[in-house]
Amino acid sequence: MAKKIVIVGGVAGGATTAARLRRLDEQAEIVMFERGEYISFANCGLPYYIGGSITKRDALLVQTVEGMSEKFNLDIRTLSEVIQINRDRKTVTVKHLPTNKTYEESYDYLVLSPGASPIKPPIPGIDDANNLFTLRNIPDTDRIKAYIDHEKPKKAVVIGGGFIGVEMAENLWERGIEVTLVEMANQIMAPVDYEMAAILHQHIRDKGVRLILEDGVAAFEQNGRIVKLNSGKTIETDMIILAIGVKPESELAKQAGLEIGERGGIKVNEYLQTSDPSIYAVGDAIEVKDYVNGQPTQIPLAWPANRQGRIVADHINGRDVRYNGTLGTAIAKVFDMTVAATGNNEKTLKRLGIDYEVLHIHPNSHASYYPGAFPIALKLLFDRKTGKIFGAQAVGYDGVDKRIDVLATAIKGGLTVFDLPDLELAYAPPYSSAKDPVNMAGYVATNLIEEMVETIQWHEVNDLVEKGECIVDVRESIEREMGFIPNSINIPLGQLRKRLNELPKDKTIYVYCQVGLRGYLAARILMQHGFKVKNLDGGYKTYS
Amino acid sequence: MAKKIVIVGGVAGGATTAARLRRLDEQAEIVMFERGEYISFANCGLPYYIGGSITKRDALLVQTVEGMSEKFNLDIRTLSEVIQINRDRKTVTVKHLPTNKTYEESYDYLVLSPGASPIKPPIPGIDDANNLFTLRNIPDTDRIKAYIDHEKPKKAVVIGGGFIGVEMAENLWERGIEVTLVEMANQIMAPVDYEMAAILHQHIRDKGVRLILEDGVAAFEQNGRIVKLNSGKTIETDMIILAIGVKPESELAKQAGLEIGERGGIKVNEYLQTSDPSIYAVGDAIEVKDYVNGQPTQIPLAWPANRQGRIVADHINGRDVRYNGTLGTAIAKVFDMTVAATGNNEKTLKRLGIDYEVLHIHPNSHASYYPGAFPIALKLLFDRKTGKIFGAQAVGYDGVDKRIDVLATAIKGGLTVFDLPDLELAYAPPYSSAKDPVNMAGYVATNLIEEMVETIQWHEVNDLVEKGECIVDVRESIEREMGFIPNSINIPLGQLRKRLNELPKDKTIYVYCQVGLRGYLAARILMQHGFKVKNLDGGYKTYS
Ligand SMILES: Cc1cc2nc3c(=O)[nH]c(=O)nc-3n(C[C@H](O)[C@H](O)[C@H](O)COP(=O)(O)OP(=O)(O)OC[C@H]3O[C@@H](n4cnc5c(N)ncnc54)[C@H](O)[C@@H]3O)c2cc1C
Ligand SMILES: Cc1cc2nc3c(=O)[nH]c(=O)nc-3n(C[C@H](O)[C@H](O)[C@H](O)COP(=O)(O)OP(=O)(O)OC[C@H]3O[C@@H](n4cnc5c(N)ncnc54)[C@H](O)[C@@H]3O)c2cc1C
Ligand SMILES: CC(C)(COP(=O)(O)OP(=O)(O)OC[C@H]1O[C@@H](n2cnc3c(N)ncnc32)[C@H](O)[C@@H]1OP(=O)(O)O)[C@@H](O)C(=O)NCCC(=O)NCCS
Ligand SMILES: CC(C)(COP(=O)(O)OP(=O)(O)OC[C@H]1O[C@@H](n2cnc3c(N)ncnc32)[C@H](O)[C@@H]1OP(=O)(O)O)[C@@H](O)C(=O)NCCC(=O)NCCS
Ligand SMILES: [Ca+2]
Ligand SMILES: [Ca+2]
Repeated sequence: MAKKIVIVGGVAGGATTAARLRRLDEQAEIVMFERGEYISFANCGLPYYIGGSITKRDALLVQTVEGMSEKFNLDIRTLSEVIQINRDRKTVTVKHLPTNKTYEESYDYLVLSPGASPIKPPIPGIDDANNLFTLRNIPDTDRIKAYIDHEKPKKAVVIGGGFIGVEMAENLWERGIEVTLVEMANQIMAPVDYEMAAILHQHIRDKGVRLILEDGVAAFEQNGRIVKLNSGKTIETDMIILAIGVKPESELAKQAGLEIGERGGIKVNEYLQTSDPSIYAVGDAIEVKDYVNGQPTQIPLAWPANRQGRIVADHINGRDVRYNGTLGTAIAKVFDMTVAATGNNEKTLKRLGIDYEVLHIHPNSHASYYPGAFPIALKLLFDRKTGKIFGAQAVGYDGVDKRIDVLATAIKGGLTVFDLPDLELAYAPPYSSAKDPVNMAGYVATNLIEEMVETIQWHEVNDLVEKGECIVDVRESIEREMGFIPNSINIPLGQLRKRLNELPKDKTIYVYCQVGLRGYLAARILMQHGFKVKNLDGGYKTYS
Repeated sequence: MAKKIVIVGGVAGGATTAARLRRLDEQAEIVMFERGEYISFANCGLPYYIGGSITKRDALLVQTVEGMSEKFNLDIRTLSEVIQINRDRKTVTVKHLPTNKTYEESYDYLVLSPGASPIKPPIPGIDDANNLFTLRNIPDTDRIKAYIDHEKPKKAVVIGGGFIGVEMAENLWERGIEVTLVEMANQIMAPVDYEMAAILHQHIRDKGVRLILEDGVAAFEQNGRIVKLNSGKTIETDMIILAIGVKPESELAKQAGLEIGERGGIKVNEYLQTSDPSIYAVGDAIEVKDYVNGQPTQIPLAWPANRQGRIVADHINGRDVRYNGTLGTAIAKVFDMTVAATGNNEKTLKRLGIDYEVLHIHPNSHASYYPGAFPIALKLLFDRKTGKIFGAQAVGYDGVDKRIDVLATAIKGGLTVFDLPDLELAYAPPYSSAKDPVNMAGYVATNLIEEMVETIQWHEVNDLVEKGECIVDVRESIEREMGFIPNSINIPLGQLRKRLNELPKDKTIYVYCQVGLRGYLAARILMQHGFKVKNLDGGYKTYS
């Protein structure tokens, strides 16, 4: 007999499951419930439609109900909310929203892909703020866009510096609105570490966005015309975007007695089955295993939702497929820059007490002599002993996505930092250098592990300065005009061998240059002449 | 006692070896001979300096003799040609070109990185063609640029459609010169296969370059004002660029009795030692092992030269490092397009009699709803049984380099096509899709191996048409206005399930759509309804 599969949620995870189910089984009965009016829309495009770079609303609708029903022979029911799972009799209770009528629908397999919803904490005044929006779906988008089109706000406050907050800041700015971005932490873009986010802080401030860090919202006043911060600051505004994160839509699963993780995500096994094996769950609603450290986590992104949806369809059809965890590869455009990361960041490794080594380099996106090359700030985290790659982060104007994708592939391929120099990447001047930034990261990592050089980190410098340590700037004198570390002496690399007698043999010498390369060369010279030496990782650029 | 290392050739491989040698050993005596005036220059940038996108000649000189000598404490001798290796007494004979004086220099280790030279066959009239140039180094570049600046040629003929030929065609065109590109084979850009190159043929013709395929030069007449082709065609021209390939500079090695490969490359072991273990060789001059098929080959590119140079320096210093072969990852900008490839192409696999499966897809470079998305023609070659990736090729306007780099990484990581869907690549609308093109290639490959669908190739279509086979176009009727396969019938995908009765059960049905996706969906429907069916791989787009 034909299987009957019921799917809750008709967008990334749900629609993908449905499509693959049909390709695998022409006979299956497939019912997809979606409480909204639209299915299969481009969540990720919403900010850009508001900002105007996506001009056609239709472009956001990847599949229509009609088109998808026809192509995949699906029973798609929109405006239909699944309000209960009746596991004992394998049915769901559905409420048809326009009529408020409820009915039961039976299933052999149930697939939950209900997504996540924007967090909206009970901040005083939030319910009266009639200019406050969250962004998750098409109706939210329509509301925000209509508000901008008709009310023509001059000022906006975006609360939350995650990727949706930052994308919205940019897109409101594109509309000519004066934007203030408020973030509780000391940095935006949590997937990268502080010193990487600092590059973005500078960039968005340069663009004219007012960025307030380490401050949260205490209250909304005057129907949202005043945002009051914990610090006491008040901001006048015409509109507010609240984007402080999402929480899994796991209420339905919870009420049905399915196991839920600590942070609210539905628990699943490697086949993406919940604690009830005939119920699968995917997407933003679930808890996943961190691919690098094995801990439970939540990664509300589109790639996992799509991947998981297909795996579920395969597993329902008897195929032996597994989901091996999520790396959390993520990327965002931040005005003219790109920020991307994969795997674990330093904050996570510290929190878990994992021993790691770190490097920062600033290679050009492609050959420096070919027009349009910009440095990429690239950070790599790895195991000092095994060379295992824990994670990578990059910020720059060009070529950031490529390097993070290569590193994400390396991680999934089980490659270590020792393998990175051997990656034979495509080189011609418009695209890369004969040693690609990823190769370079591999060289630098290998040198650290093989003790060719020891490094110190940007956050250790001030302490050294205070202690009056011997700090040597090996850049050309002219480069110091743009700034240098206080109390550092200047011996350009080319003169170093002749001026060794100016340096102490009894204490550690801290060398630095602009990005770390000449500092490394200096360190090699000094080490081999019997000096104790450490190089400033990432150079003055990462430090400053 | 300090080691003495002598290096022949001061550019990609040679200079890299020297720099790393010094970092590893401050005491070593390092002598680098270069017969030209310049060391460490950007060979790969030369065409762009001629074309004008690189404006400063100085930008081509990555290191000066003075700067590099100082930084790395090297004994660099330019205008000094090594004319003989005296293995018995471990010396080289050097000729100082300005004075013609010769002398011997001793070595403990000798490193050969002499590169390759442009092939210049004895075509009738070649020696009298005073407007004919080859391009390898700075003097060549100066000559070509001076000729263009002063003689203001209106027409140019570029002979050879490899990457230097194509880059020169583009850069001459940038200078406003009318360009004819002549190629002996039926396609330009040998690293990719015919149907991939065909996209480039169209593109460069659209740009106004006259492209002549399957024709070679028979003679040059009137001092190179007339190029006569084998077909009898004659072309009038003001200048000629000869770029039909390079041959290894292995004469010196050969005369010294070192082993030379069949195609003239110096033979080396995995440590890059020649048949004389105190003589190493790297770069364009050597024969390497093809990483995919294990056969000897020659890959004159900058990445291998740089990588090998560093490995040699390490090995001389007692480190256990090996060169594992060359994938041949290559890339070129072709006007507004990019072409790239890694691993083996179909021509190579056929020649070696290796069984392979092939797929073509045309995914967008990033989310189609976000501005600036362009399809990438992506071809993947793999083993039908094991899923081993043999090679990949891509042509498009954007995102080509990234996908080839990811696939090159996957190959080096030993990943199979079954792993490609699990690559967690960075997704936001400006950069990719929730299923990246590489993921998609993995899905399509897996479907082929798992017999979810059978495909036919673009080159098989005409035969089917002639035989009067049943060919079904599952696109919308309107799409046929842009062209369709002769004698194909049209049943749009959405109507297929209702119109099954129009199709024969006793013979194979060949379905196709625009890119292969809907054809696949149609194939799945038909297969499950008991039809025999094959889908046209890559769709009408690859076929046409
Ligand atoms: C503004 C924005 C930008 C984003 N940008 C990116 C990006 O650049 N890159 C990226 O990787 N990810 C991005 N995401 C995240 C990505 O969209 C999600 O990770 C992905 O959509 C999750 O898929 P899902 O199927 O789990 O949930 P969704 O796609 O949200 O689908 C869940 C659906 O289920 C429906 N539903 C919920 N409960 C019920 C119920 N009980 N009955 C019926 N229907 C129900 C909901 O109405 C919803 O339509 C973005 C998200 C937003 C909101
Ligand atoms: C126009 C052009 C564009 C290119 N574009 C690209 C590209 O986009 N991507 C890419 O990967 N590769 C490209 N290449 C190829 C790349 O430059 C080479 O693969 C690389 O330079 C090889 O390094 P090598 O050290 O073997 O030889 P080279 O860099 O050529 O260095 C060899 C040096 O040795 C010297 N020499 C030779 N014999 C002697 C002797 N007996 N005594 C003293 N000196 C000697 C020569 O004068 C020469 O300077 C390009 C090459 C050219 C010419
Ligand atoms: C579009 C959507 C319905 C999924 O449909 P889908 O059919 O699984 O996905 P695609 O249209 O990308 O096609 C993928 C299928 O086509 C196949 N395919 C793709 N290109 C092909 C080609 N050229 N030839 C043959 N097959 C091809 C793939 O193998 C895959 O099939 P499989 O899963 O059976 O292996 C769903 O992803 C969706 O709703 N997306 C929008 C929402 C969303 O993802 N939001 C978050 C990001 S904004
Ligand atoms: C430039 C040239 C002399 C090589 O010099 P090199 O010092 O080996 O190469 P780079 O300047 O790229 O520096 C790489 C070294 O710096 C280190 N490094 C790079 N960035 C660093 C950073 N931020 N911090 C610390 N170390 C760094 C690398 O680890 C590597 O050192 P290692 O080999 O000891 O591990 C040589 O490549 C050359 O002549 N190139 C031009 C010719 C050419 O390649 N032509 C073909 C392409 S156009
Ligand atoms: Ca680039
Ligand atoms: Ca892109």
